[in-house]
Amino acid sequence: MSTEPSYQRITADFKAAFESRIPTELLLSDLPKDVSNLVSTSGLLDPAEVDIVQMDATGLRDALASRQVSAVAVTTAFLKAAGIAHGATNCLMDYFPEEALETARYLDAEMERTGKPVGPMHGVPISIKDQMCVKGREITASFASWVGKNVPEKDGVFVRILREAGAVFYVKTSIPQAIMHLETDSFLGPTLNPYNRELTSGGSSGGEGALIGCRGSPMGLGTDIGGSIRNPAALNGIYGFKPTATRLPKGGNRAPMAGQESIPAAIGPLARSARDLSLCIETVLAAEPWHLDPTQVGMKWRPDEVVWKGGDKPKIGVMWDDGVVVPQAPMRKALKLAVEKLRAEGYEVFDYRPFKQSEGWDIITSLYFTDGGQTIRNAIEASGEPMLPLTKWILEQNQRDRPALELFQLIQRREAFKAEYNAHFAASGVDVILCLPGPGPAPILGTSKYWCYTSIFNLVDYPAGVLPTGTFVGLEDVREPEREFLSEQDREVWAAYSPEKMIGAPLALQVVAGRWEDEKALLALQMIDQVLLGK
Amino acid sequence: MSTEPSYQRITADFKAAFESRIPTELLLSDLPKDVSNLVSTSGLLDPAEVDIVQMDATGLRDALASRQVSAVAVTTAFLKAAGIAHGATNCLMDYFPEEALETARYLDAEMERTGKPVGPMHGVPISIKDQMCVKGREITASFASWVGKNVPEKDGVFVRILREAGAVFYVKTSIPQAIMHLETDSFLGPTLNPYNRELTSGGSSGGEGALIGCRGSPMGLGTDIGGSIRNPAALNGIYGFKPTATRLPKGGNRAPMAGQESIPAAIGPLARSARDLSLCIETVLAAEPWHLDPTQVGMKWRPDEVVWKGGDKPKIGVMWDDGVVVPQAPMRKALKLAVEKLRAEGYEVFDYRPFKQSEGWDIITSLYFTDGGQTIRNAIEASGEPMLPLTKWILEQNQRDRPALELFQLIQRREAFKAEYNAHFAASGVDVILCLPGPGPAPILGTSKYWCYTSIFNLVDYPAGVLPTGTFVGLEDVREPEREFLSEQDREVWAAYSPEKMIGAPLALQVVAGRWEDEKALLALQMIDQVLLGK
Repeated sequence: MSTEPSYQRITADFKAAFESRIPTELLLSDLPKDVSNLVSTSGLLDPAEVDIVQMDATGLRDALASRQVSAVAVTTAFLKAAGIAHGATNCLMDYFPEEALETARYLDAEMERTGKPVGPMHGVPISIKDQMCVKGREITASFASWVGKNVPEKDGVFVRILREAGAVFYVKTSIPQAIMHLETDSFLGPTLNPYNRELTSGGSSGGEGALIGCRGSPMGLGTDIGGSIRNPAALNGIYGFKPTATRLPKGGNRAPMAGQESIPAAIGPLARSARDLSLCIETVLAAEPWHLDPTQVGMKWRPDEVVWKGGDKPKIGVMWDDGVVVPQAPMRKALKLAVEKLRAEGYEVFDYRPFKQSEGWDIITSLYFTDGGQTIRNAIEASGEPMLPLTKWILEQNQRDRPALELFQLIQRREAFKAEYNAHFAASGVDVILCLPGPGPAPILGTSKYWCYTSIFNLVDYPAGVLPTGTFVGLEDVREPEREFLSEQDREVWAAYSPEKMIGAPLALQVVAGRWEDEKALLALQMIDQVLLGK
Repeated sequence: MSTEPSYQRITADFKAAFESRIPTELLLSDLPKDVSNLVSTSGLLDPAEVDIVQMDATGLRDALASRQVSAVAVTTAFLKAAGIAHGATNCLMDYFPEEALETARYLDAEMERTGKPVGPMHGVPISIKDQMCVKGREITASFASWVGKNVPEKDGVFVRILREAGAVFYVKTSIPQAIMHLETDSFLGPTLNPYNRELTSGGSSGGEGALIGCRGSPMGLGTDIGGSIRNPAALNGIYGFKPTATRLPKGGNRAPMAGQESIPAAIGPLARSARDLSLCIETVLAAEPWHLDPTQVGMKWRPDEVVWKGGDKPKIGVMWDDGVVVPQAPMRKALKLAVEKLRAEGYEVFDYRPFKQSEGWDIITSLYFTDGGQTIRNAIEASGEPMLPLTKWILEQNQRDRPALELFQLIQRREAFKAEYNAHFAASGVDVILCLPGPGPAPILGTSKYWCYTSIFNLVDYPAGVLPTGTFVGLEDVREPEREFLSEQDREVWAAYSPEKMIGAPLALQVVAGRWEDEKALLALQMIDQVLLGK
């Protein structure tokens, strides 16, 4: 007796297949809430391997280039670390040690033969989000209905350039259903936050966030159309950068809504240091990817041309809240502390007024799914997998099938909003906005519904990065007393906060620059990081 | 007894109103076919004014900056010249001498007061295509139904920057119905070619083409979504440049299909010299217009960074025909002559193969009117004006209302084509393509139906410019003997050629560079111009 395999059978087989390649001793049980140091404390890595996974990508690059470590040693350490991270947080959707070690052996042999690295990423392991093309490695795009059907023959443009620069690919990471939650839950189950496994790792690059947060990867690639790089970077205590949407090469990947260009996604790095963000961007732009990728502008990376309004330092505008939802208590405390430290270091810091966040949300959601969500619904329904509540919720935000005439009007509305926002930003006189990357630290699983702290900068297409503050939610960070609320969402966010539940969750900041000022955004992030954490 | 004014009454009143401001003695009758020198030979300009209108914009800028001529004198000369040009070719849709002279008097007073020009365009008259916003001057967008309804309160971004740079605005120029013909005919009647008034001036910036061709303007602004700068530049013996679509500021203008962004239009200059194209672009980009215009990329103009594959000169790939339509006899002769001259000057010139021109046309026309042409039809029908045959023809090319799902697929097809074209271009090893700007010189009125020599470079968004060869159709340029045709269009284009009918029409070339290589395209155009015409 045989039946058509159900979506459960297909997805269980898929998960079992890649997890069977992870050595079982790495998959630990009886774990605590906080697994952020598990990789180092588990005893499964030897001391040299622990040293390796503590390094950032730039440190690894230097150690590899100076032959202090071999590519095989580095790859072996991160394969172990990624296996442990997956067992603790469910952050992977593919694991391919043989291919990775083959690449590492090739790189070591080339180093031996020529005496120099094959490129600026020689031997650095890089993790890749599900829907990006790594040749020969399956893409699910989060849909059970895609399983078994999408194995690209070619790398996407960004991956190809990193591969040519000597990077080692070894894992692909989990994403949420439809790639449109600020959490990561799909037919593979939820990805958990390594600092508190009762919380979400964020999304949609939430597999990257949890993996890098656990030191299971030094650097990864994510995408961001509403916060999907910045949110998981923030929630997992790491760094992330969403460039201008057309600044880094998105081409050659597979998205379920390919062809939707009314709100473009950006591709960018998540990493363990601010300098790694530069390493990634400089490496890829040095290859002039616009010749390979028609979606990208032909702009070189020119940090030397940045001019600060504040002389030798950025003028910083602080957006304390967004006018719709006041951030939860520990977030406000973290921002206040950062402002004090910056002022103490001589930075000019003043207030930045938020601008029409609700209208911005209305516009961006009108343009996310101009097909009324049909493509997503079809991809979900094709296998019979259930639609998750956060998928249903985002599809209900101002989504309907838009005839071309209405689309033209929406795009005009978007352009008018962008022009207004640009005027507001220009009038503020700031170099960068310093604000929070969301209204709270990592939420309880299944509750992330306020995107506007990040999505507004997708709508206006401003470059924005996230950095950790080095501080975390503690029991002393009690909920603020009940107050007059700015909105129903404000009340909900206030009510959702609990120091007992969110204990240990990292606190992060967001740095945003104006149109096309990617270099300015990243330099400012690095300068602020220097003040906060001295790195 | 009163009736609603018909579209004829409205448009006749509109035309009479602006023409009433043109001194009647400028509107000559009993004119010959060739009026290209009429402005200078009419006797209506005094010798100093004839000298002024012979200058290009850079020459005028220098003469004004060094106070050899006044802004009032320059404006007066071009007001006369534009009036004469309009009487001979029907190239205007607005004429505003009072405003222009007021600006000129202000500029002269400022020069007197400060001893220096107000900006890099001090006193240079610039003509503006209908649908661009010049504050206080009406826009018709070619539709009778718009007449009397669209007077912008603000300049468009490009116009605003030119105004701040000291430019003088004095006329707006004619466009074809729907702004989508490679001719210029609308409720205002056809614009004629100054070299042969039985031929078209091209389109859609055909008013600019005829006006500048007649020396009624030293420089004008046009737009190009399928050839609309390059075609009229070519047909009127002048220079034109279509940059990458997002490279120069399009914002703040009014297009009938605003919000259509699947095939973006470019904005750019038409002028009387190759150096004027640089003057215009450098002036506008020095103002960093991307801060004012969310449609534009934040790229500076960097001609110093151009690197030629051919060492000190561009490697030139010649596309003799596009594989679908062989150009008419005099065009091929002009291209052959140019190649001989370039080789004699040491340029490396080899053949460039065309790439899927028919497929490109199918894709671009599927994306021009994704609303199935409703917006255009509605704008025409609203007044009862008749739809012109060339409007009907373009709306019939693969146009239908596209639901969002189909639009996503078309956009993926477009992106795949662009990637293929880029690979083809990269494999050719050329710096620039040298080709013809169309299959023939200026056609007989109402017959322009082959866009692919220009539209392909809108689809792939390559920067492209047009320059005159200094040669013209002569009676000796007989039609080639009948041959095996590449396509039905090829046969039609061959059959349409007649040296008797097209006598005197200018012959031009097109220079195209790769993605984002605007500086390379313009420098190569200037170098080729130097070889051909020694300017």
